[in-house]
Amino acid sequence: MSLLREPHHDGSPAYLDDESPTLGWSVRVRCRVAADDPVERVWIRTTYDAEPTFHACTAVARDARADGSVWWEGQLPLHNPVTHYRFLLVGPEADGSQQRWLTAAGVVEHDGPDSLDFRVTTHAGAPDWGREAVVYQVFPDRFARSTAADERETPAWAVPAHWDDEVVFEGSDPRTPLQLFGGDLDGVTEHLDHLVEVGATVLYTTPVFPGESNHRYNASTFDGVDPLLGGDAAYARLAEAVHARGLRLLGDLTTNHTGDTHEWFTRAASAPDSPTRGWYYFAHDGSYECWMGHGTLPKLNLADPDLRAAMVEGPDSVVARWLRPPFSVDGWRIDVANMTGRLGAVDVNHATARAVRRTAEAERGDAWVIGEHNHDASGDLDGDGWHGTMNYSGFSWPVWSWLRDPDSPARPFGRPVPVPRRPGQQVHRTLREWQARYGWQATAQSWSILGSHDSARIRTLTGSAPVHRVAAGLQFTLPGVPMVFAGDEIGLEGVNGEDARRPMPWHRRDDWDHDTLATYAALARLRAAEPALTRGGLRWAHVDDDTLVFVREHPAGSLLVCARRAAGGSVDLPEGALLATGQEALGDVEALLGTEPGGPGGRLKVRRGTLRVPADGVGVRVWRL
Amino acid sequence: MSLLREPHHDGSPAYLDDESPTLGWSVRVRCRVAADDPVERVWIRTTYDAEPTFHACTAVARDARADGSVWWEGQLPLHNPVTHYRFLLVGPEADGSQQRWLTAAGVVEHDGPDSLDFRVTTHAGAPDWGREAVVYQVFPDRFARSTAADERETPAWAVPAHWDDEVVFEGSDPRTPLQLFGGDLDGVTEHLDHLVEVGATVLYTTPVFPGESNHRYNASTFDGVDPLLGGDAAYARLAEAVHARGLRLLGDLTTNHTGDTHEWFTRAASAPDSPTRGWYYFAHDGSYECWMGHGTLPKLNLADPDLRAAMVEGPDSVVARWLRPPFSVDGWRIDVANMTGRLGAVDVNHATARAVRRTAEAERGDAWVIGEHNHDASGDLDGDGWHGTMNYSGFSWPVWSWLRDPDSPARPFGRPVPVPRRPGQQVHRTLREWQARYGWQATAQSWSILGSHDSARIRTLTGSAPVHRVAAGLQFTLPGVPMVFAGDEIGLEGVNGEDARRPMPWHRRDDWDHDTLATYAALARLRAAEPALTRGGLRWAHVDDDTLVFVREHPAGSLLVCARRAAGGSVDLPEGALLATGQEALGDVEALLGTEPGGPGGRLKVRRGTLRVPADGVGVRVWRL
Repeated sequence: MSLLREPHHDGSPAYLDDESPTLGWSVRVRCRVAADDPVERVWIRTTYDAEPTFHACTAVARDARADGSVWWEGQLPLHNPVTHYRFLLVGPEADGSQQRWLTAAGVVEHDGPDSLDFRVTTHAGAPDWGREAVVYQVFPDRFARSTAADERETPAWAVPAHWDDEVVFEGSDPRTPLQLFGGDLDGVTEHLDHLVEVGATVLYTTPVFPGESNHRYNASTFDGVDPLLGGDAAYARLAEAVHARGLRLLGDLTTNHTGDTHEWFTRAASAPDSPTRGWYYFAHDGSYECWMGHGTLPKLNLADPDLRAAMVEGPDSVVARWLRPPFSVDGWRIDVANMTGRLGAVDVNHATARAVRRTAEAERGDAWVIGEHNHDASGDLDGDGWHGTMNYSGFSWPVWSWLRDPDSPARPFGRPVPVPRRPGQQVHRTLREWQARYGWQATAQSWSILGSHDSARIRTLTGSAPVHRVAAGLQFTLPGVPMVFAGDEIGLEGVNGEDARRPMPWHRRDDWDHDTLATYAALARLRAAEPALTRGGLRWAHVDDDTLVFVREHPAGSLLVCARRAAGGSVDLPEGALLATGQEALGDVEALLGTEPGGPGGRLKVRRGTLRVPADGVGVRVWRL
Repeated sequence: MSLLREPHHDGSPAYLDDESPTLGWSVRVRCRVAADDPVERVWIRTTYDAEPTFHACTAVARDARADGSVWWEGQLPLHNPVTHYRFLLVGPEADGSQQRWLTAAGVVEHDGPDSLDFRVTTHAGAPDWGREAVVYQVFPDRFARSTAADERETPAWAVPAHWDDEVVFEGSDPRTPLQLFGGDLDGVTEHLDHLVEVGATVLYTTPVFPGESNHRYNASTFDGVDPLLGGDAAYARLAEAVHARGLRLLGDLTTNHTGDTHEWFTRAASAPDSPTRGWYYFAHDGSYECWMGHGTLPKLNLADPDLRAAMVEGPDSVVARWLRPPFSVDGWRIDVANMTGRLGAVDVNHATARAVRRTAEAERGDAWVIGEHNHDASGDLDGDGWHGTMNYSGFSWPVWSWLRDPDSPARPFGRPVPVPRRPGQQVHRTLREWQARYGWQATAQSWSILGSHDSARIRTLTGSAPVHRVAAGLQFTLPGVPMVFAGDEIGLEGVNGEDARRPMPWHRRDDWDHDTLATYAALARLRAAEPALTRGGLRWAHVDDDTLVFVREHPAGSLLVCARRAAGGSVDLPEGALLATGQEALGDVEALLGTEPGGPGGRLKVRRGTLRVPADGVGVRVWRL
């Protein structure tokens, strides 16, 4: 049976009639059930103030054809800021003996806990420019050198490197964080054409604050830009150039810790009665808490009101100041957001996230705040803090597990073994459970990443250009905001995060994978053109070991996506289950994109109520329904 | 394959070496894997401050026989007050291509969210007398009348009833809350022999505060006992008699609302500047928030510090005062605990739960606090608030769904249709998911209830005495504290909560179901005698439509339990998977209990490595391994 015959609901406009719901009001929700599915009664089950309650639905539209759909609709009161709900589907038996639940992770028959319920939040969503973005991540030391870079002296802590040198990437090698290639901000400014070519709409750079490392996550101040990057003036020039092109700029701020060379810390360490002593966690013996045991990264105490004012709260905070001219950063990616404000029995993480967001939004109403989380961020999203997360667990790792070259050494964070190559069915289930757990909005606002400066490169994980392009295809067509780590689009490799930080080979364009670059650009164009990719629902249509087929539904036009990690046969889909309300027939299905050279392919036709997705090789294809 | 071949871990002593773990220390955890299961490497995955981390395990004991077990052991650091964890089991392939997760809900192969992870809390557990209790619930108006009751005048609000009158139970009938049968506290005192006969160790009475209803959940004061129940003196006599027998006494307190006749409320309603005005949620027009729209039940504002001091915080609070002589209540069941402190965007529920527990423990170190929750309490347990909940979702409803007479009208709270009769496989999955979600300790400290004064009676749900006794068997043998609603043990009936409040027919003992009473007493004796039932682990051994077989493992002696809702065939279990570490063979398996008349039955023998649970009819049997 096609997955399309399963009852369906998600947070997209076809199923939830308000994208900005209001506390204390109701939203109309709809659930689609196949016409020949013996459902006679439907309720929404939710809670208010944690008390369970059921709201009856009515069948509002019924397709006359057996393979059509019935739409059930009900009112869902939004009594609490975050409301979770599921549907109870009851069959025709008088005793109600046929009962199923439709949850965000699919249909279940048993009466389990609420953790995979649908969720709707009345907290404002991410700004449109964020939700619709294609983010391009730049690691400043490795992206591009301006001519000014040649004039700068290498600081004492650094190990100088030439642009074509091999990256030292073993964590045990002391040169790993010190190897300085000398990329700078004017270098980024000079290459904004490339971002536009890729289709990026947001430039996100890892930290620009000075820090005695090539990654600069060990800031020595938050009051200025590293002179090695060109200083404040270069960052202002970059910001101006970015904004002049209609792009946006995201900063990278570590609220969890500073470097041990930070002015706050050196003052704190100098005397027990220092005014910044309480900004860190000092023990009586002068030792202090730090990030993962690294003494160079002392952990900040966000329960301290003075630190909060300096860092995250109010117009004088670091969070606020950089959002004002001349930098006018448009928002923040918060580093180590999962650990921020958490230490043993202390947990002020949510208060910190809330402070960051409120402070940023006070400076600019459309600020965007993304929290890095290496694992299960479900408790930290869907509220009034981070709009979304870097979605490793819910996107990167399941995609990796489907597309992994068995010989690739790449592994998720902390995992002592590489993720195994898993069949499509498991990947499908994994994606669904994470999407359910994070909620529709938080998923759509989180970053779908194939890798970052902290992980292996997707090319190394997949071991092949076509499979890499399958990954890119999923990144741009599943819900979430694609974030491309600079260099992925031309096929750079890297076995771990440090190795992934290879300099962009601007002077060796012949080595670039231009086919893959063209695929990224085409995917970004499609995302910009099709509301279905930024706002559309997600219905799974077919899943087997090597194939994932899904529909992104949107009133402005729905898309059909077929991803294959290996060549496979045709897939038949029932036309009726694909029709929008009131639509009589599908008509011809127009091919829009293929990730492999050779173009999108031809139109698909419906014959006798069946839409056939043709047999094909490795790749992703997209059609408009 | 027997479920016993599945890898296993739970929170019991065989698998977790500390029942009172300490923040900042580690606990040793063990995982049992069948000897022929191709597991070569095992890690514990957990998080600290939300960062994922893996801890390697080592194989510490290996049974030489193919059907034996390998025990993997590792150290789990308890960096946070609540630590969740799961096991990563990796097969022999060099590329780690065989990877499974052992979660609290069972083994899964996909990399889903953490919601069903194992959990260990460093917050103190319930007092031993609570965890080991058999709770007996009395609804004072309907349990027993002392001779003094005849002397009392019926108040103006009440509709007098004779003890043998039919209970009015339609919610729409205005007499339902007003029908007064006149049971009183001296009546309870006179019948404590019955509690002892049933095997109860804790008397829990629904509220004794005055309120203009038969249920008294609409208190008009918290400063005294309803004179209709005999007043303070009668409650003091009851408390003394309960404690003299070595039993414990639990009160019932509604922190969510009061009656509209409460002195706090009448003062609040009298003037906008009344000192108690802020204790409720008044709008400018004089309207006020109330429980489920009932104007007689105004909702308390627990964000108000004066109300908190009066109600839940400090030695002058209601919570504290009743724990002191002459009543010396041993703890509280908190009514509507799920909604307490919650209203729309306001949520001080956890702060309230914490205040109740701290205040109670300040009065008596071994106080026990149970929060009523009608649905998914997972976010509210395992912390420093309620020790446990009335476990409707995780116990009552799955047991109901397995044992329901198809003609029974009984339904879970709010559900618009009766729960369907479900096969054992679904019930097993439901029980596991809820146990996982609540965590081991909170599950073991929560009340396993078959019904209460708020639901249909289990006898009406099952429609038969033997099936009712199967329910009782599960209530006393699955993890959790059995709470018996007075009258269940003699087979009283009731189609909903109101109807369930039928008076105890002390004068019609011939109508009692003495077989069922004897079963309850035998189950309570077994629970008192066997640490496995209060502290032991839970391993599922076999599940089919009509049969649930499980093992409660404990170093002091493990028990095998077989529950059947219909007659069925024998079940073979692998001996090796049942052996404790170092045990060579099972020997004879002694029969301890059967819920059906005719005694526990004979010993079981192991033949050729197989333990055969014999074919049997409806009932629960228990053996000592």
